[in-house]
Amino acid sequence: MTISPFDSAMLGNLFADAEIAALFTDDAQIASMVLFEAALASAEARAGVIPEASANRIADVCREFRPDPATLAAGTANAGVPVPALVKALKAEIGGDDARYVHFGATSQDVFDTGLVLRLRDAVAIIRRRTRKLIKALIAQAETHRATVMIGRTRSQQAVPTTFGLKAAGWLAPLVRIDHRIDTLCADLFRLSFGGAAGTLASIGDKAIEVERNLADELELPPTDMPWHSQRDVLVDFAAQLTALSGALGKMGQDLVLLAQSEIAEVQPGKGGGSSTMPHKSNPVQAEMLITLARFNAGQLGTFAQSQIHEHERSGASWLLEWLTLPQMIMATGAGLAQAVDMVPNLKVNADRMAANLELSRGAMLAEAATFALAEHLGRDEADKLVKDALARSAASQSNLFDELPKLTDVGIDWAKLRDPANYIGQADDYIERVVTTARRAIKDS
Amino acid sequence: MTISPFDSAMLGNLFADAEIAALFTDDAQIASMVLFEAALASAEARAGVIPEASANRIADVCREFRPDPATLAAGTANAGVPVPALVKALKAEIGGDDARYVHFGATSQDVFDTGLVLRLRDAVAIIRRRTRKLIKALIAQAETHRATVMIGRTRSQQAVPTTFGLKAAGWLAPLVRIDHRIDTLCADLFRLSFGGAAGTLASIGDKAIEVERNLADELELPPTDMPWHSQRDVLVDFAAQLTALSGALGKMGQDLVLLAQSEIAEVQPGKGGGSSTMPHKSNPVQAEMLITLARFNAGQLGTFAQSQIHEHERSGASWLLEWLTLPQMIMATGAGLAQAVDMVPNLKVNADRMAANLELSRGAMLAEAATFALAEHLGRDEADKLVKDALARSAASQSNLFDELPKLTDVGIDWAKLRDPANYIGQADDYIERVVTTARRAIKDS
Amino acid sequence: MTISPFDSAMLGNLFADAEIAALFTDDAQIASMVLFEAALASAEARAGVIPEASANRIADVCREFRPDPATLAAGTANAGVPVPALVKALKAEIGGDDARYVHFGATSQDVFDTGLVLRLRDAVAIIRRRTRKLIKALIAQAETHRATVMIGRTRSQQAVPTTFGLKAAGWLAPLVRIDHRIDTLCADLFRLSFGGAAGTLASIGDKAIEVERNLADELELPPTDMPWHSQRDVLVDFAAQLTALSGALGKMGQDLVLLAQSEIAEVQPGKGGGSSTMPHKSNPVQAEMLITLARFNAGQLGTFAQSQIHEHERSGASWLLEWLTLPQMIMATGAGLAQAVDMVPNLKVNADRMAANLELSRGAMLAEAATFALAEHLGRDEADKLVKDALARSAASQSNLFDELPKLTDVGIDWAKLRDPANYIGQADDYIERVVTTARRAIKDS
Amino acid sequence: MTISPFDSAMLGNLFADAEIAALFTDDAQIASMVLFEAALASAEARAGVIPEASANRIADVCREFRPDPATLAAGTANAGVPVPALVKALKAEIGGDDARYVHFGATSQDVFDTGLVLRLRDAVAIIRRRTRKLIKALIAQAETHRATVMIGRTRSQQAVPTTFGLKAAGWLAPLVRIDHRIDTLCADLFRLSFGGAAGTLASIGDKAIEVERNLADELELPPTDMPWHSQRDVLVDFAAQLTALSGALGKMGQDLVLLAQSEIAEVQPGKGGGSSTMPHKSNPVQAEMLITLARFNAGQLGTFAQSQIHEHERSGASWLLEWLTLPQMIMATGAGLAQAVDMVPNLKVNADRMAANLELSRGAMLAEAATFALAEHLGRDEADKLVKDALARSAASQSNLFDELPKLTDVGIDWAKLRDPANYIGQADDYIERVVTTARRAIKDS
Repeated sequence: MTISPFDSAMLGNLFADAEIAALFTDDAQIASMVLFEAALASAEARAGVIPEASANRIADVCREFRPDPATLAAGTANAGVPVPALVKALKAEIGGDDARYVHFGATSQDVFDTGLVLRLRDAVAIIRRRTRKLIKALIAQAETHRATVMIGRTRSQQAVPTTFGLKAAGWLAPLVRIDHRIDTLCADLFRLSFGGAAGTLASIGDKAIEVERNLADELELPPTDMPWHSQRDVLVDFAAQLTALSGALGKMGQDLVLLAQSEIAEVQPGKGGGSSTMPHKSNPVQAEMLITLARFNAGQLGTFAQSQIHEHERSGASWLLEWLTLPQMIMATGAGLAQAVDMVPNLKVNADRMAANLELSRGAMLAEAATFALAEHLGRDEADKLVKDALARSAASQSNLFDELPKLTDVGIDWAKLRDPANYIGQADDYIERVVTTARRAIKDS
Repeated sequence: MTISPFDSAMLGNLFADAEIAALFTDDAQIASMVLFEAALASAEARAGVIPEASANRIADVCREFRPDPATLAAGTANAGVPVPALVKALKAEIGGDDARYVHFGATSQDVFDTGLVLRLRDAVAIIRRRTRKLIKALIAQAETHRATVMIGRTRSQQAVPTTFGLKAAGWLAPLVRIDHRIDTLCADLFRLSFGGAAGTLASIGDKAIEVERNLADELELPPTDMPWHSQRDVLVDFAAQLTALSGALGKMGQDLVLLAQSEIAEVQPGKGGGSSTMPHKSNPVQAEMLITLARFNAGQLGTFAQSQIHEHERSGASWLLEWLTLPQMIMATGAGLAQAVDMVPNLKVNADRMAANLELSRGAMLAEAATFALAEHLGRDEADKLVKDALARSAASQSNLFDELPKLTDVGIDWAKLRDPANYIGQADDYIERVVTTARRAIKDS
Repeated sequence: MTISPFDSAMLGNLFADAEIAALFTDDAQIASMVLFEAALASAEARAGVIPEASANRIADVCREFRPDPATLAAGTANAGVPVPALVKALKAEIGGDDARYVHFGATSQDVFDTGLVLRLRDAVAIIRRRTRKLIKALIAQAETHRATVMIGRTRSQQAVPTTFGLKAAGWLAPLVRIDHRIDTLCADLFRLSFGGAAGTLASIGDKAIEVERNLADELELPPTDMPWHSQRDVLVDFAAQLTALSGALGKMGQDLVLLAQSEIAEVQPGKGGGSSTMPHKSNPVQAEMLITLARFNAGQLGTFAQSQIHEHERSGASWLLEWLTLPQMIMATGAGLAQAVDMVPNLKVNADRMAANLELSRGAMLAEAATFALAEHLGRDEADKLVKDALARSAASQSNLFDELPKLTDVGIDWAKLRDPANYIGQADDYIERVVTTARRAIKDS
Repeated sequence: MTISPFDSAMLGNLFADAEIAALFTDDAQIASMVLFEAALASAEARAGVIPEASANRIADVCREFRPDPATLAAGTANAGVPVPALVKALKAEIGGDDARYVHFGATSQDVFDTGLVLRLRDAVAIIRRRTRKLIKALIAQAETHRATVMIGRTRSQQAVPTTFGLKAAGWLAPLVRIDHRIDTLCADLFRLSFGGAAGTLASIGDKAIEVERNLADELELPPTDMPWHSQRDVLVDFAAQLTALSGALGKMGQDLVLLAQSEIAEVQPGKGGGSSTMPHKSNPVQAEMLITLARFNAGQLGTFAQSQIHEHERSGASWLLEWLTLPQMIMATGAGLAQAVDMVPNLKVNADRMAANLELSRGAMLAEAATFALAEHLGRDEADKLVKDALARSAASQSNLFDELPKLTDVGIDWAKLRDPANYIGQADDYIERVVTTARRAIKDS
């Protein structure tokens, strides 16, 4: 079934992300839960809580045990979580006395959430690998286009010049920050969920803490100070970072869609679906998708955050709300990164169109620069007045401001230099240097 | 893949809804789009825009043409929409000169959105059928439990008595209103999408309106005054009604979860997953799911509504945001209804526990009734004072207010009658009558 | 204080809407609640539930009673709702025996929610009046610009021609639908809230239904089948219509921001804040605000819908969530309408720029039209081939497609006519006629 | 006006937070922007960009300059931001030649966003101070109630025992994590916004970086690698932490509302609004408010995150969406903390009711413990069977499981010890120790 485009074979390549999707198949979820059960048995055997032979038998069976997900459906619907059905099937597979030591002292949420964390660890690795690739690609664009002057635009209007390199640096800087925050977050995120029925591990008795430590070792997931069954703040933080990441991509996508407009045409973002009947069109499909995914994740974050309000030691209602939102957020983030990694190195930057668009205001965008230059000779009031006169003449005759100015004054100003937007890009180059330096430092180990 | 629980074989029976899911498979989507292409060819042949023989050939092929969704994936990723790949495959299947008359004058969004509307029509039929079933089940509960007195609770506290019948009527009343709003909405929702490249049908020439009329006939979908490619208000209204519907179910689910609490135990909502180690537990899985689905849809509505802001004649970014949200909202609504239809007739109402819980306040919940009764004999001030005294004695000795009151006064009041909560349920029965009457009228044709 | 821009004196004129804001001041809220109390006393006196003299005294005092909102603050914080403090103050003002008949049998939510509905009635009247003004303004634009040809744009790219009149019709059509839905909704929305402590009116006794009827008469608000304290579906529908309305404005605002871009410059949306140092800029402040308000309302709708999940007979938590969202949604809608009503009649439509932008693709946007024309003479294959050749020549020499085509064939086609985009606008005019006819009919009584 | 409850005098004490509100008044916003202008002049004078005398004059005037916010309203509406009107008024106040050096080279967003950051710094200090107070109060509750045994509840059902101390630790643990994340975030959040018209500082010329450094010194806000006008990821992270914080409080509020239910009555969360006609009620107003504020912030986060998608160098539409959401999120967080700080130390914990509720399942909640104990003597199968028999007898005769068990076996088990829930709380005490130790370490400097 394909209720979500992320699960669709037809829409797949547009929306989906095979590498991350593989972590969220039913099979992958089952595998991660089976891995927990094997590790738990081992941890408990090491602590003397269950017989070592039973733990070995459990581990042996778990290595191969991959039941058909559909066989768990009825049990899942009954229990509201797939774990009891899975445990029952696993016990049946094991058989005999050993079976009773499966899942000993654990609760469904321990299995499900630890299984999730194991797969989040893989997903984060993929996301961070792609983020770093994208960072490298944007470093390259920022450096390549240090001197590619274009108009800066604020509130949809041409403002003053900037460079495409600085634009790329502006897409880059948030990625470095967000990747760092994800890195920091990992220590809180990759944690064992293990608390038993109501979060006290009472059923395991005196050895509970030893089992917890062993299990943490087995899975390389440290425990938390107390079970986090109904404490979801770290997941909210994780979802927020996913949203920030896809939001940063969405901002880049929005810029590219705007720059790719037929009338602006400064950048063509990679391949674009053409049209047989409209040969002039090149739809910026990937850039649009970045916007879609960013807005999707933003909305999902608001929904996901509602799930924080767990009742008591476990809320079925809140917990399941996570299942409906988090995997899709991860996919949306991964898919956006995949699109961006594919797109950014192949941007077709049209410096000629940038130059042409810089001429559209006929010099008005540099009125400020002209005023400053004149003020040094004439004082500010006189300079103001003179530039205003020149602007009026420019408007009336559709001429360039810098063709009018020399007609109105003979002060010794290098007008040719002044009218060149490349001489009015301020600190663009310094900023690029700072952003790129920070970025290089951030990824130097990868 | 199973990024969404709605698409999961393992979680399926818990979350999914096979009947509605069948409308949103890749295959169903393809079938609906192929149906559009066949109808378009026929409509154009009737108007003399394309040869009748070609239309016949197209219709013939379309009857059977169901390409493997995966074969469209690459084309979908390239174009940002599956239609061009589908049309190309369909043309290849038809071959020869007839192929060129496929999709004549239409744009991808015409095909995709009309295909969606065709399936929405089926989905709405399923949703309304279930809503009516649920309405009937709630009418039955409201009538069965007219005299089942229980405590009403406000702000989590016991307030004054009500009946379980009125509670059921309170779950019922919104469903009738929402079903009526969905009924009204259908006239706006089940509309042809047909506008060509930029919504002018220019490519079809003079016969465009005739083709539009014919196509509307073929699909039984009236046209709108102008193409609605970038007008999504009706879909927002539809999504809002889905949210209201699942919200009404969520409110019922929340009440049931609260009533099912171990300490209250007034209603057991259908089957509940037991626990081998905790035999006293009966988790209200279905009721919890209603809350989850309601909160999910509420959040999705906020995301979906962002997609209204289409740029110009078509926005790739906004349009695709709908794909990520609307099918899931429909599924969430359908799944909730399915759960509720299963659950409501089987509620185990424990009138004894209701009666016992009515005793918890030791008569204090009827202090108001006592005051009114006494005031008729003693005046309000005296009555107030007397009830306050009795409440103080009741609190001190853990006795019932109505055991203390006769000790403090000898006015002729039928205390036994007054202390019976069944005599303080106000208009509960009238309200039930009004709600049930409205509900019966609403479903009388179904 | 000014936590919300809607409440700010500084940001006020940008965000706020004095007319609607007046309905949501503390004073207005108090006045609406006092009005309820007066009407309740009168309704109860008519039914013989309280003395007529007391009702008269209550009504007399209520006419003038407007306590300082701050005096209710402490009581509000204690009770979680301002009504008890208000009732207490009102009783103190009335004094004597009459005071005890104030608020007789009602609960705080009756007062608060009915007070809200009374003000919603006024707010809807304002919103609908503005919507109709805007509809008229858009009818005028659609008709004025029937023949103002411009390029249609899909997925950010130039597609095929349309007219500015059709664009205006596209902004208009949703408004007519939404206004109709709001009209329909009024019958459900303007309803008395009256149920007493737990929604049974038990405290009023046998006369409860008569009091309900009288109160409904007094306030011209019909009762519902049963109290709607914890049934919020109608409010969700209302909030959804507000969102659809501001969404429709947001789509218009987005189009205008895009059309106002320096490089496109086809429409200047009303006044735009200039800049002393950037004289060429004219920020489309009002159009941007429409986007902001649309996205705000979309998000609020998702939050508001969470409040549907009321526990039992009344949920403090869910109810107060409405207070944090609904008034702001109404303001956002009203403010957007005010901006749009101000902006739309004053749009500066630059037909010259539209014409110039139509030339940007050098005829390619009409390749389809050329192919169809040639196909009548040469057959489709030959026509395709010829147009492709001409497009290649046009691209190579930066010439116009329609300058190249006559060089490649001598079939008798009126190339001058064919290359004029005004001849390729399809059904634009018919659509405008249909939309405008529907719109005129909709507002004919206003 | 009072569109937001946060701005209402009547609702104020319920919703608002005078200390944080003071940071978001128009006056506070103006003061922060005037502070920026003074610091900018000083920074520019130190770099020799403007005359020192002018900077002194500007600083002198700024010290006192607090225009009436309403006088800026018209200019704000025109420019879409209050800064131009403020700068104009400030220049008028300064007069003469010095006036022209006001706001030299800066853009409105520099002033507005830096002003915001200055106030965020104060708000975060308040929030963190309160968080630490709350942490201390929860440490005290966790320690006080180490031995206060109560039933743990999962999916709304009684599960196995826990302690109120562990419950308090569960509310505490997230606060410590979130406070740490906010602490970490400060380095990214408290940053200068300074980029000039399009983020290049071109208008300041060669001295731009020196001015930036000086300004950073003046305001104690380090610069970022490049201006962050259209990079909002750090604000998204901040909003997420506010949401996590209010979410953690909401979870506590939800638990308290549930524990305060009349039928459970284990904790009374501080003062609760009583009712004259319902003397038995004590509404948990503060606890409910924590839920309301948590759900509000969760939803706002989803809306706020939409504002990440800035177009180009500055988006009016996205930027203003922040204004509508962020201050309210801060208020909601601050108000929740204020309520919690007031409530937590005054929780009335009713250990007797906890003990009574532990008896409700008549020992079934300890069936697991019984099975384990018996299994050591009889083997698991026999133990299982025996417990099942005893449970059946217990159910049939409404007796306690631990009264039935000794009748069925004579193995030497200390039944009295086993049936005491205080002996089945597992690691509750260890967990409390770990959580409290971490918490103490976290706040040791405050």
